[in-house]
Amino acid sequence: MIQAAFYLGNRSIRLGEIQPRDPATDEVQIKVSHCGICGTDLHIFHGALDKRVSMPAVLGHEMSGTIHALGDGVAGLAVGDSVAVMPIAPCNDCPACAAGHNHICHNLNFLGIDTPGAFQSYWTVPAHTVHRIPDNLSLMHGALLEPLAVACHDVRLADVQSGDQIVVVGGGPIGILVALVAQHAGGRVIVSEINPYRVELAALMGLETVNPNETDLVDLIMSRTRGAGADIVFEVSGSQAGAAVMTELLRTRGLAVIVANFPRNPQVDLYRFFWRELRMQGVRVYESQDFADAIALAAGGALPLDRIITDVRPLGGLKSGFEDMEQGGKVMKILLEL
Amino acid sequence: MIQAAFYLGNRSIRLGEIQPRDPATDEVQIKVSHCGICGTDLHIFHGALDKRVSMPAVLGHEMSGTIHALGDGVAGLAVGDSVAVMPIAPCNDCPACAAGHNHICHNLNFLGIDTPGAFQSYWTVPAHTVHRIPDNLSLMHGALLEPLAVACHDVRLADVQSGDQIVVVGGGPIGILVALVAQHAGGRVIVSEINPYRVELAALMGLETVNPNETDLVDLIMSRTRGAGADIVFEVSGSQAGAAVMTELLRTRGLAVIVANFPRNPQVDLYRFFWRELRMQGVRVYESQDFADAIALAAGGALPLDRIITDVRPLGGLKSGFEDMEQGGKVMKILLEL
Repeated sequence: MIQAAFYLGNRSIRLGEIQPRDPATDEVQIKVSHCGICGTDLHIFHGALDKRVSMPAVLGHEMSGTIHALGDGVAGLAVGDSVAVMPIAPCNDCPACAAGHNHICHNLNFLGIDTPGAFQSYWTVPAHTVHRIPDNLSLMHGALLEPLAVACHDVRLADVQSGDQIVVVGGGPIGILVALVAQHAGGRVIVSEINPYRVELAALMGLETVNPNETDLVDLIMSRTRGAGADIVFEVSGSQAGAAVMTELLRTRGLAVIVANFPRNPQVDLYRFFWRELRMQGVRVYESQDFADAIALAAGGALPLDRIITDVRPLGGLKSGFEDMEQGGKVMKILLEL
Repeated sequence: MIQAAFYLGNRSIRLGEIQPRDPATDEVQIKVSHCGICGTDLHIFHGALDKRVSMPAVLGHEMSGTIHALGDGVAGLAVGDSVAVMPIAPCNDCPACAAGHNHICHNLNFLGIDTPGAFQSYWTVPAHTVHRIPDNLSLMHGALLEPLAVACHDVRLADVQSGDQIVVVGGGPIGILVALVAQHAGGRVIVSEINPYRVELAALMGLETVNPNETDLVDLIMSRTRGAGADIVFEVSGSQAGAAVMTELLRTRGLAVIVANFPRNPQVDLYRFFWRELRMQGVRVYESQDFADAIALAAGGALPLDRIITDVRPLGGLKSGFEDMEQGGKVMKILLEL
């Protein structure tokens, strides 16, 4: 038996034991090292995905670990390898898969949501989801690869060019990673965030950060761009305020990138889309090249990954982690150490 | 003195006389033949642009005519030439112009809105706005070139490919022209329209047309595409219903093209944009190549332009034209003959 954390519904988490699953053909079993708590996990804790998850549910998908056992037919991986998991398994049969977009397959199995995740000591997954971590990247930093791959995907689809004026609306973990990757790609990035702790932390990471309750963000961007507006706005807040400001900020033919999960349909200024020929692009998860880009970027050492990880707790800290996140406490990314 | 129609505010139109303006350097004076009534003219009649237009205002910008006089410095045009006007004059100094998008200049002079238009017998305009009409295109059809150029612009920016499944939401004059141009480009087009007269007229023009109050449009598109969804939706209705259905209709990474002027900010399903990595593109007016494309397409004879023109009235028919348009009467495009 191995240790696991179970989501039981109704904001309830129980620590307990579970039988580890031996790897079948084309699967590997990973000894989990670290697993981050994602905003999606928090949504699940709030009951937002109760129709989708099978309780008791083992969540967790932002993980790193070492290979413990290999199923039959697995090539290119060895016991003891340091790895991270790209936790998506497509059906390879639906219209999205047929069109080459299997990362957003209509029947996507998101490991850690639709099937058991990594909030357990040992996790068994399809071998195709496993990416090796190079020696110069720690397992702790390896647990950031999944959200970093999201940021790499978003910046790639936005086609960020050197010198682009970029605004990231929302300075949580994904917003910060998007801002760091966009800045690394040569963008002139401003993060908009109202939580004072996050504003301070982002500044420590070398990001220009503005509290829009204190500074007029539109005025600032217009003064920086001689009245043209921003080239790209990443909307990571999921708020009506964010949906409203994105159209005010953008230059003619500028691009709004929808990163956030909007819980409600916001009002959007479609007249402004018409008037300035604005563009919008939704972005979700990542493709293999984004995961490879994330590994190269993290291993390259240019990103302040230590500052993003504000807490490392044992598995029993999952519930307190959720509570700290929902209270807007002094946390950015919380990792659980298995 | 020449004949003109004046908008006086408060739904008031007066016919009267006006002193024709001699062409200055780099201008031409056109004897107006035909001028269509645009939806924007109707908005102005309703008072929606009273802050922008200078009353008494001579409206009208969908026109054709023959050159009556040339100002100094005009080359490549001759008295007697049949012409249409691309009625936009950019400042060539703002950020949009600097970025190469001078058709949506921040300080755009839209002839017939910001300055006097073609609801008068003689109209004097900058020579750079004038496009010659080939001999095989009648002056009556020439008055459709301006809205046809809008459709060419919209289809070009949408990058319509042969075989694309396309939905046009809204079957007024612009929607019909977008549908015809998209179909001519090889798209499989369905028009969604609730007005029975327009449904019937669109069918006569060879367009598959559906009344979404009678047929489930989403079901239809899903059955046509084996559950994938439409490649492109042109939103030409400016309605909340249109803004809602576009996200339901689109395939993974499909494109919503915002053609309409939305009078209010609709709620938009940004979660669906995220979930399916949808794209959106606002489109407005045209560029020179779109006007050239419109001329070639109209002169080529492949479009049922006669059916789009449902009425030709004298200048005095402007007010009754507005009234027929706002009552949803049996009109598609009304032309005034000067």
